[in-house]
Amino acid sequence: MVGVKHLRPFDDKVFDAGFVYISAYDIWVDPNHAAALAARVPTNVRSKLDDEQRRSLILGRTGRDWPLHETVSVIDRRDECTPDRWIPRHPHLIRLSGRHPFNCETPLQDLVQKGFITPTSLHFVRNHGAVPNISWDTHMLSVTGLVDKPTTFTMADLVTKFDQVTVSATLVCVGNRRKEQNLVKKTKGFSWGASAVGTGKWTGVRLRDVLQKCYVHSYQEGARHVHLNGVQREVPLGKMGCYGTSIPLCSANNAANDVLTPDHGYPVRVIIPGGIGARMIKWLSEVVVSSTESDNWYHVNDNKVLPAGVDEERAAREGFWSNPDFAINELSIQSIITSPTHGELIPLAASTSTTYTVRGYAYSGGGRKVITVEVSLDGGNTWLISRIMRGEEPSEYGKHWCWVFWEVQVPLLSLFAAEELRCRAVDSSNNAQPENLLWNVTGMMSNSHFRVKLQLKADRADQIALHCEHPTKNGAEPGGWMERESLSLQGIKAVSTVSVQFDLTMLTPLHSAAPNKGIPIRRLAAHARPFSGQEAEAEGLMLGPATPP
Amino acid sequence: MVGVKHLRPFDDKVFDAGFVYISAYDIWVDPNHAAALAARVPTNVRSKLDDEQRRSLILGRTGRDWPLHETVSVIDRRDECTPDRWIPRHPHLIRLSGRHPFNCETPLQDLVQKGFITPTSLHFVRNHGAVPNISWDTHMLSVTGLVDKPTTFTMADLVTKFDQVTVSATLVCVGNRRKEQNLVKKTKGFSWGASAVGTGKWTGVRLRDVLQKCYVHSYQEGARHVHLNGVQREVPLGKMGCYGTSIPLCSANNAANDVLTPDHGYPVRVIIPGGIGARMIKWLSEVVVSSTESDNWYHVNDNKVLPAGVDEERAAREGFWSNPDFAINELSIQSIITSPTHGELIPLAASTSTTYTVRGYAYSGGGRKVITVEVSLDGGNTWLISRIMRGEEPSEYGKHWCWVFWEVQVPLLSLFAAEELRCRAVDSSNNAQPENLLWNVTGMMSNSHFRVKLQLKADRADQIALHCEHPTKNGAEPGGWMERESLSLQGIKAVSTVSVQFDLTMLTPLHSAAPNKGIPIRRLAAHARPFSGQEAEAEGLMLGPATPP
Repeated sequence: MVGVKHLRPFDDKVFDAGFVYISAYDIWVDPNHAAALAARVPTNVRSKLDDEQRRSLILGRTGRDWPLHETVSVIDRRDECTPDRWIPRHPHLIRLSGRHPFNCETPLQDLVQKGFITPTSLHFVRNHGAVPNISWDTHMLSVTGLVDKPTTFTMADLVTKFDQVTVSATLVCVGNRRKEQNLVKKTKGFSWGASAVGTGKWTGVRLRDVLQKCYVHSYQEGARHVHLNGVQREVPLGKMGCYGTSIPLCSANNAANDVLTPDHGYPVRVIIPGGIGARMIKWLSEVVVSSTESDNWYHVNDNKVLPAGVDEERAAREGFWSNPDFAINELSIQSIITSPTHGELIPLAASTSTTYTVRGYAYSGGGRKVITVEVSLDGGNTWLISRIMRGEEPSEYGKHWCWVFWEVQVPLLSLFAAEELRCRAVDSSNNAQPENLLWNVTGMMSNSHFRVKLQLKADRADQIALHCEHPTKNGAEPGGWMERESLSLQGIKAVSTVSVQFDLTMLTPLHSAAPNKGIPIRRLAAHARPFSGQEAEAEGLMLGPATPP
Repeated sequence: MVGVKHLRPFDDKVFDAGFVYISAYDIWVDPNHAAALAARVPTNVRSKLDDEQRRSLILGRTGRDWPLHETVSVIDRRDECTPDRWIPRHPHLIRLSGRHPFNCETPLQDLVQKGFITPTSLHFVRNHGAVPNISWDTHMLSVTGLVDKPTTFTMADLVTKFDQVTVSATLVCVGNRRKEQNLVKKTKGFSWGASAVGTGKWTGVRLRDVLQKCYVHSYQEGARHVHLNGVQREVPLGKMGCYGTSIPLCSANNAANDVLTPDHGYPVRVIIPGGIGARMIKWLSEVVVSSTESDNWYHVNDNKVLPAGVDEERAAREGFWSNPDFAINELSIQSIITSPTHGELIPLAASTSTTYTVRGYAYSGGGRKVITVEVSLDGGNTWLISRIMRGEEPSEYGKHWCWVFWEVQVPLLSLFAAEELRCRAVDSSNNAQPENLLWNVTGMMSNSHFRVKLQLKADRADQIALHCEHPTKNGAEPGGWMERESLSLQGIKAVSTVSVQFDLTMLTPLHSAAPNKGIPIRRLAAHARPFSGQEAEAEGLMLGPATPP
């Protein structure tokens, strides 16, 4: 049997990193597509936790408060006159990188509030070009290269000829939090806030199964890399305008099928749990087994983290881009505060609660478990340990593919006495977030302590409140203490704020529910003038026109 | 076939973490044992690089300069009157934790100089009790628990009934660099310097093969953990005085056999590449497959990293020890400067070289690759990228199990102008060493930037030289800037040093080979009085007498 020869090397290297799925469950579906597609996808494989369990575990809420779907059917005006004018998109999405290509993130405060599984319509999108308008019935996936039996599969082949598997996995754009990096020094990429992240439930088939059906060669026979290519004429760079990458053969455990939205890769994309989004090729068209890495422009010149401080000129001069060592594949440890959100005013006097619940998300890569998330109110001298809420059990192989939510109750007095709230996380390999931002030329893997600045201000009723300021604000609008400090440094008049020196010992009784009218504070200056930031125009690595001919 | 039922779950989870080996090659052998044992161990499996390749790759030296073995045959006087009085030990080993049990580390400057494979006689040792005096012919390994066919194997069974595999792997005591932690605040453990690390070439059999021969149950049938126990009556704590731990079933890819030294686990121990030393049970006697984790005292109460700052009292009060999340299994990213070594005087005037080569080692865990090691001369503002030298190719599965050596040439002028030399490393998952030490109650996984302080001083000929001071000095002797600062803080008179303010612009011609006699400097004060440090007495987690009855 020819197959046996090839079976062994795979059996020896299979572990549950690298499975590739397409959701049959939680992804928003254009009603026009839904009917046609739903029937094709088996839904017999289920997550270990049912929805009800997950809801109660995570949010302590009822199902009604936790919408999995937020249906959208209208075309946004901003998409008119672009090649994407056929795709309905949620109006709450924060659009980055100008009008086109479409790149968006979720409003940060929505991430945790909307639940463990991110509603598809609010899930971040990273596109490099126009979304290919592909038909389920005609799209093909070819498998070639170091295989004995090159094969072209239809979508129907994928859903009927292979075992279906389901996994929950957190996807992260490796540029998450790049806006902070850009405020230190402009990187090559555009400014993601802290919400280029979302969690989905994906159903699909294993790439290893697909490769085995084609009698993939073994490692010993020279098969080392699996190239994954999207459709042609999607992007301005790369061979035939095709976005592509490659992964080591030993990670190649899947390709898939399903009811994805066009923005998320319909009809077939790659999912690599614990990996960076950039390897999870959307609109997958071609799988090529090879002895060498991909030479696709995006594989070579993007998704690398060069040593901190190496700028673009030096990188080019010294050949950093051609060094495969700097390619990143697994996510690193990250944690973010989502409550308080940016701009939140926490009232003191009117509050009946003596505590405030700080909340956020955290994730790590490679299946490593998030072990602790801690919060500091004193600049990192002492730390409070948060309660971690997990929405999924680990896999049989002990892998953790999803983010966690966390919360910690902080005495209101402590919060009002603090100048800053910061969080940090540690994973099961004892990897910790760096204390300070390490600038790198692609601005990727930005994961320093997440710091929220706190200032006493007046709310609308002239009552004392604590004003919370994230390092940056999602999108192109002005805001965030890093931007404020950066503007100050640049000699631009910073946003005018009222700085109040305030003795907390005066506040007796502190926890009285009665409004404390004794300490009026001047109203804040109005918001600064709209800032048509360069972030809005930044095109990242897009060096040419993104519209197809 | 009964076997088939159990084969499948293992095939699905096998990757090359967790192999267990015993060296048949580089481990020093007591001549009395060598003859009897050498014949038993097949040596047909070889590393991908032969010795000559490895030598030239790493050191650019001839074989003569790179001793694999440093034979020892005499009993050290310090071992007389201890239960270990039968074991010859190298006199250069730096002994920690008092006279007994035997715990030692390699002199730091020897680590890189002695080559990629650490000479066995200089390899660090972590013992919790007396070394069991075990005979190859009578020692047995039992496999019980959730297996269909409980079996007891002789050592001869292990070397004849299973495939032999060889791997190079770096072993690290998870307490490496704990001395720095102890200088911030006493932890539960004794003071390792920065050389509780060594690299060996291990040959053995896979634990998965042994388990499969016993028809181990599948994950679905409830088999989740593999307990690994040493011999009974070795240690003061633990069930029957037996040191033990457990690993998840999915990591259980080996048990082994061979010509180890007694200190390193003769005749059989566990090796888990990329893991922490504490899981690699020596004198392995018992393997038990179970649905639960080990309840061995050392598994529960040791080898955990609690959140930074949680002290012993709080840990006990809030039940931290019983939380398996805090158990550590994989090593985290680490780098150390070995040249300049502690106390090194780098002469300026007499030097004919215009550069100095800074050298060191680095490693990470879980098979992750060390990507960059950088050196800073200005407190971390700017960084020089080092050249990394790898002694081993990655495994087929892309895993990196060994340390790397690195070097970077620094202009002598820059070095003399600097107050501090520090290094940091990044691994392939973009994990970086923390900038500052994070104290934890076991003092484990200490991996902050490694900082060497530089001071201008006079050498013996009253010439200007740069005095290099590591954070700590190996062993119980006084030394190191952290200790000096700590002593100062404690009000104890610090070591007297001559601090020289020095204008480098005066040094023309800087690189003249002629001795520069123009700038006499007072001799240094003599060494401070011997410091009978508490480190010498510290027994770490040893809470009772370690001598067997």
